[in-house]
Amino acid sequence: MREVAIIGTGLVTFGEMWSKSLRQLWTEAALNALEDAGVDAVDFITVGCMSSGLFTGQEHLVSLLADELGVAGVPAMRVESACASGGLSLRAAFAEVASGLADVALVTGVEKMTDVDGSDATYALGTAADQEWEGFHGITFPGLYAMLARIHMAEYGTTSKQMAQVAVKNHANGLLNPHAQYHLKVGVDDVLGSTLVADPLHLLDCSPITDGAAALVIASVERAKEIAGDRPMIKITGSGMATDTISLANRADLSELAAVRLAGERAYAMAGREPADIHVAEVHDCFTIAEIMATEALGFFERGEGGPAVKRGLTALDGKIPVNTSGGLKAKGHPVGATGVAQVAEIVTQLRGEAGQRQVQGARIGLAQNMGGSGGSSVVHILEVE
Amino acid sequence: MREVAIIGTGLVTFGEMWSKSLRQLWTEAALNALEDAGVDAVDFITVGCMSSGLFTGQEHLVSLLADELGVAGVPAMRVESACASGGLSLRAAFAEVASGLADVALVTGVEKMTDVDGSDATYALGTAADQEWEGFHGITFPGLYAMLARIHMAEYGTTSKQMAQVAVKNHANGLLNPHAQYHLKVGVDDVLGSTLVADPLHLLDCSPITDGAAALVIASVERAKEIAGDRPMIKITGSGMATDTISLANRADLSELAAVRLAGERAYAMAGREPADIHVAEVHDCFTIAEIMATEALGFFERGEGGPAVKRGLTALDGKIPVNTSGGLKAKGHPVGATGVAQVAEIVTQLRGEAGQRQVQGARIGLAQNMGGSGGSSVVHILEVE
Repeated sequence: MREVAIIGTGLVTFGEMWSKSLRQLWTEAALNALEDAGVDAVDFITVGCMSSGLFTGQEHLVSLLADELGVAGVPAMRVESACASGGLSLRAAFAEVASGLADVALVTGVEKMTDVDGSDATYALGTAADQEWEGFHGITFPGLYAMLARIHMAEYGTTSKQMAQVAVKNHANGLLNPHAQYHLKVGVDDVLGSTLVADPLHLLDCSPITDGAAALVIASVERAKEIAGDRPMIKITGSGMATDTISLANRADLSELAAVRLAGERAYAMAGREPADIHVAEVHDCFTIAEIMATEALGFFERGEGGPAVKRGLTALDGKIPVNTSGGLKAKGHPVGATGVAQVAEIVTQLRGEAGQRQVQGARIGLAQNMGGSGGSSVVHILEVE
Repeated sequence: MREVAIIGTGLVTFGEMWSKSLRQLWTEAALNALEDAGVDAVDFITVGCMSSGLFTGQEHLVSLLADELGVAGVPAMRVESACASGGLSLRAAFAEVASGLADVALVTGVEKMTDVDGSDATYALGTAADQEWEGFHGITFPGLYAMLARIHMAEYGTTSKQMAQVAVKNHANGLLNPHAQYHLKVGVDDVLGSTLVADPLHLLDCSPITDGAAALVIASVERAKEIAGDRPMIKITGSGMATDTISLANRADLSELAAVRLAGERAYAMAGREPADIHVAEVHDCFTIAEIMATEALGFFERGEGGPAVKRGLTALDGKIPVNTSGGLKAKGHPVGATGVAQVAEIVTQLRGEAGQRQVQGARIGLAQNMGGSGGSSVVHILEVE
């Protein structure tokens, strides 16, 4: 298996982008990544997108987007794993380059979510849950994560205040990220005083609905050296994936995210690393409880210690393991298919030492964890700078 | 890059399967493939599906289906490239196994199309075209292929009768395939006398709307030898992909399917083969004109010779290059995401010499060509028996 490196990142500002279509958002991110990498040709493209069919009435994105970028002909693959589609996009391209099928690949994610009204968006997102056994009964994602939160609170004593601290931290980080959807200073009282969406989750415990795209350029290390010259080499040293039952009702244990744990274990094993080696991480904070559970499943903290860890500042920018320096899904926004790619772009930025005011000092090993549904799938990547 | 072999195939009978849900169809095909391969565990799963969101209100198939099969935990990847999603499913798993990321993978495709009414199915299929520049004007796929047919007729003198011969041949083959949706003897007059859908395409020039699933098990050649024992080894020697513009209006030349030509060239180059080496082929006959154009783009015939070749019987079971021995999309049915996988299953069956009455004598090298939209993407695989 060939070694693979990331040589370019491209983002667009996330938000309610009513003046830009899916193809425009995607192309802007793709061109930014190609410019950052200094390449004008790729031999493979991946597109992570959850539900362009329901959100925009458009499937067959591989043809649409290769065409829009002016490179029709290039092989392209769209992947979907609900909100983990972006992480899966990197994995699919990683396999192509690692195998030798491609040398230089454009890895992208996109979701255009605000062209439908709120109930249609909620329906589209709900297709990540089990339609016959969960959706049929009317539950949507805030409700599913509220149940996970309740169990975590009952089992470990996790508190609403600890969850609120996740939002406070991530919004503080988001203030330092020009691409973030929200630039808001948020306090614990703001979170706890915001509308209750699904008890115990308040509005400010939830990530938003967002339009956005993100892109990376990856290459075999050999080609990366030719292209990138003296720029720091960011290698993908671990790539792990896992599934779990789609419905919560089928899980043996609801107080952990098993797919995240498994994906993390596989990524650590491939990289020859352990949780304590990680200097900076982006995790899937679609709801504040999800970040707490992810930091436990990834082994940064013991089970039940994720909540107290946030409260103690261990995941803050200057903490033991800074988490979601980008602002996370919470503040940066959550254009579903783009999220996993944007997470990796943030880690690359950190490992390059180009994160400005939100730079984690001395970050050389980073991890990005993306998740689908209520934890039915997860993808974890470990990146290291040489 | 490691060599990869196909060690199992699994089909379900295609048709209007109102008593079976998407997950049931898929699981039946998956279990059939696992049984055929003689394995009870895989370390990767791919799912090709075009639009489960629009057809069934369900995305996140990786979690749904790994769960349903009882193997939650296993890494899984859903891929989409409109009607080429099945071919892409094999490509994605091929890259995983070729790279060494996986040893044994379950490759699947599925589409449950008949749970929505006809206009909703037409809308869902239409998302494979350019929604803003084609769909907006009301055109659907029969219209797009009718335009391709008109151009081919004008350029090369292809006739409605030659197109009808494709339907006649494929329905004759379908009579010999127990998994086919239709077991109908169809004559040229039946086709030419059937309802005009989009001039010059008649109802019997069109493939149907179908529920179905198909599966394969693939493995590294090393593992395949351990598992398969004395069974003939079917190697994947070529895998080629390409995109083209999504809208017909953007193409320089409408009398060829450039994505098919490019994908074919790439597969031939990888396999070290040329068109004349192929003994049997499954090609994407979503409309009869598509088969004619595909056989030209794949180099079986010169441009403009695809129509006369069918008329002369060159693509019949006992012809120079038998095409769509399974009955093709036309007679076997076209459950979009399953089609590309079922095509490969047919080639494996032929190369194993297990095709019964539709067996092509001495078939040792086969090709499967899957296509998305009006040719906006294509995937080609070449298989060889040792």
